[in-house]
Amino acid sequence: MTGPRYTKLINSLPATVPFIGPEEQERIAGHPFAARLGANENGFGPSPRAIAAMAAAAGDVWKYGDSSSHDLREAIAAFHGVGVENVLVGEGIDGLLGYLCRLMIEPGDAVVTSDGAYPTFNYHVAGFGGVLHKVAYREDHEDPQALIAKAAEVKAKLVYIANPDNPMGTHHPRETIEAMVAAVPDGTLMVLDEAYVEFAPEGTEARIAPDDPRVIRMRTFSKAHGMAGARVGYALAAAPLIAAFDKIRNHFGMCRISQAGALAALQDTTWQAYMRLLVSGARERITQIATQNGLSALPSAANFVAIDCGADGAFARAVLTELGKQGVFVRMPFVAPQDRCIRVSVGPEPELDAFAAALPAALKATRATLSR
Amino acid sequence: MTGPRYTKLINSLPATVPFIGPEEQERIAGHPFAARLGANENGFGPSPRAIAAMAAAAGDVWKYGDSSSHDLREAIAAFHGVGVENVLVGEGIDGLLGYLCRLMIEPGDAVVTSDGAYPTFNYHVAGFGGVLHKVAYREDHEDPQALIAKAAEVKAKLVYIANPDNPMGTHHPRETIEAMVAAVPDGTLMVLDEAYVEFAPEGTEARIAPDDPRVIRMRTFSKAHGMAGARVGYALAAAPLIAAFDKIRNHFGMCRISQAGALAALQDTTWQAYMRLLVSGARERITQIATQNGLSALPSAANFVAIDCGADGAFARAVLTELGKQGVFVRMPFVAPQDRCIRVSVGPEPELDAFAAALPAALKATRATLSR
Repeated sequence: MTGPRYTKLINSLPATVPFIGPEEQERIAGHPFAARLGANENGFGPSPRAIAAMAAAAGDVWKYGDSSSHDLREAIAAFHGVGVENVLVGEGIDGLLGYLCRLMIEPGDAVVTSDGAYPTFNYHVAGFGGVLHKVAYREDHEDPQALIAKAAEVKAKLVYIANPDNPMGTHHPRETIEAMVAAVPDGTLMVLDEAYVEFAPEGTEARIAPDDPRVIRMRTFSKAHGMAGARVGYALAAAPLIAAFDKIRNHFGMCRISQAGALAALQDTTWQAYMRLLVSGARERITQIATQNGLSALPSAANFVAIDCGADGAFARAVLTELGKQGVFVRMPFVAPQDRCIRVSVGPEPELDAFAAALPAALKATRATLSR
Repeated sequence: MTGPRYTKLINSLPATVPFIGPEEQERIAGHPFAARLGANENGFGPSPRAIAAMAAAAGDVWKYGDSSSHDLREAIAAFHGVGVENVLVGEGIDGLLGYLCRLMIEPGDAVVTSDGAYPTFNYHVAGFGGVLHKVAYREDHEDPQALIAKAAEVKAKLVYIANPDNPMGTHHPRETIEAMVAAVPDGTLMVLDEAYVEFAPEGTEARIAPDDPRVIRMRTFSKAHGMAGARVGYALAAAPLIAAFDKIRNHFGMCRISQAGALAALQDTTWQAYMRLLVSGARERITQIATQNGLSALPSAANFVAIDCGADGAFARAVLTELGKQGVFVRMPFVAPQDRCIRVSVGPEPELDAFAAALPAALKATRATLSR
């Protein structure tokens, strides 16, 4: 009984997991969090119309979801003013990034991203044997020119940028992103992750022709629509690239309830506007809390705020640990110098109150420990 | 602007889609189906407790699902009397089969299945460049001895069998499956698809040690639990194989609502027993309808019945088309000689009434056309 024979690539992959989820952290801690502000979720929740649509769809869940997500794709296409052939719906941006890497990446292929940008993208690149080339952030922003230069240098198949950025919450105006698209080297595909763009100032969302073959945009219902647990993401790209996903995707992979919820959420534009107000208010509150504790918050175009803890990564990591002891779940950047910050997601008042209450003690405990 | 560079494998794959979904067929036909009896769904629907749990979870969907599906995995482990380390929850059996192929299959690797068995398995094998070796059915049953002999001959990495079988609904007693496990060649992994086993006679479910490295079992909430649209499947296997999926799976890919629904469904054993009665009654009704039309139905251990239309594949395909014209959606086997049958999924009385009403005319029209 020798057991299964894995591929060479699988044998070479580490057994690590990209993120430990909040529930797992709660189980390790032995108690639930008082504030769940770490996963860039949107604690204000989905539109009541989306909730009602999902509850109504629950009784219909004996049916497989529509394998082409037809109604949702039509609504998304209308929303963005593109053709339905430019829209792919999938199991969250994470799922779509996995498919995209599978389409493009063979062992040894070059991929460019920023050092400290979205780890799940890196996970999928590595999972198909891609070789990651990372460029540094520049003043807490991803650096479009450096990304493009590196992509040209290594003949990258993919170059990744998030606008707004995660984990720093910074953003570029659309002109900068449009200039980046114009500079994409031949044979490279730009992956423009716009998971947070709905929270950004007007003029952030780039204007890209629907059939531009140089770029694929990733969008999601997890953030602006408050539906992270529903797993609905979508990609906007040239029709031939969208069609290529049909060669490999899990055609019946979309939850029927989630499809119904996303459609209702997309139609509730009043709720979307309300949500932007709530998120903007919560960002201000988080900034205020930082200031009250003698820290500075980075201006954020997303649903989270990076707070500069004023020292190095070890200090910020200790603050994060102390916050966790008090039941406040936040996360932080992985890479220096961004790791001087902690990253606090928006949430309703009681959760931000819990953060406000916990931060002074966390800072005090950290300073006491690290100065010993 | 050259656009994206796909992998060699992707360029070699066809643009075909494994199944056209019922909604797509309705759009093509221009009207909804009167009876949705083609996709092996379970029209009796999920447990009311599961529906309530999903409706309740809708408001919580701003949270990502638990990335380790901890509570659901614990419940599944207890249900089967195995360790939680022997259980993997994923996005339906389709999703799990995709991950499994990715773990095992490199271009050129041999895989064995039956000619006419589950096409989505074949889709995933081909999608990773595997070479499919197909053995014939034997008297409308998958043929364990032939599958094992072929696996040994071609040094297969995977050998697939469904028990009960889809699309014929036949089954083997567990002793036959256990003998197959005992005969699995070194270096081959047996994929035992038990999507339908809850509907089979007692003594069908094989007894396999939880840590047997020779086999991985696939189970689902789509059939017995009536939750196809929720996309919850699970695998039972030796702990090292289950752990290997963590290297590549979409860790936050599970819908939170679906997790909650599956947990409630698993706990509602009374509903499960009721469902088996309903399904068994519907199978009898379908058999009766066949008999009343001079056709014979194959004994079924699943939630569908294969009806032998008494002629060849062209005849059965014409019957299927005629049923479709009358708004009755059924499917049929792809491969001769099984394609002499149409495959009718169970459903509530009104849908079976629609099938009963449509079948005589469909047969008459087919006979008139084909005898011209």
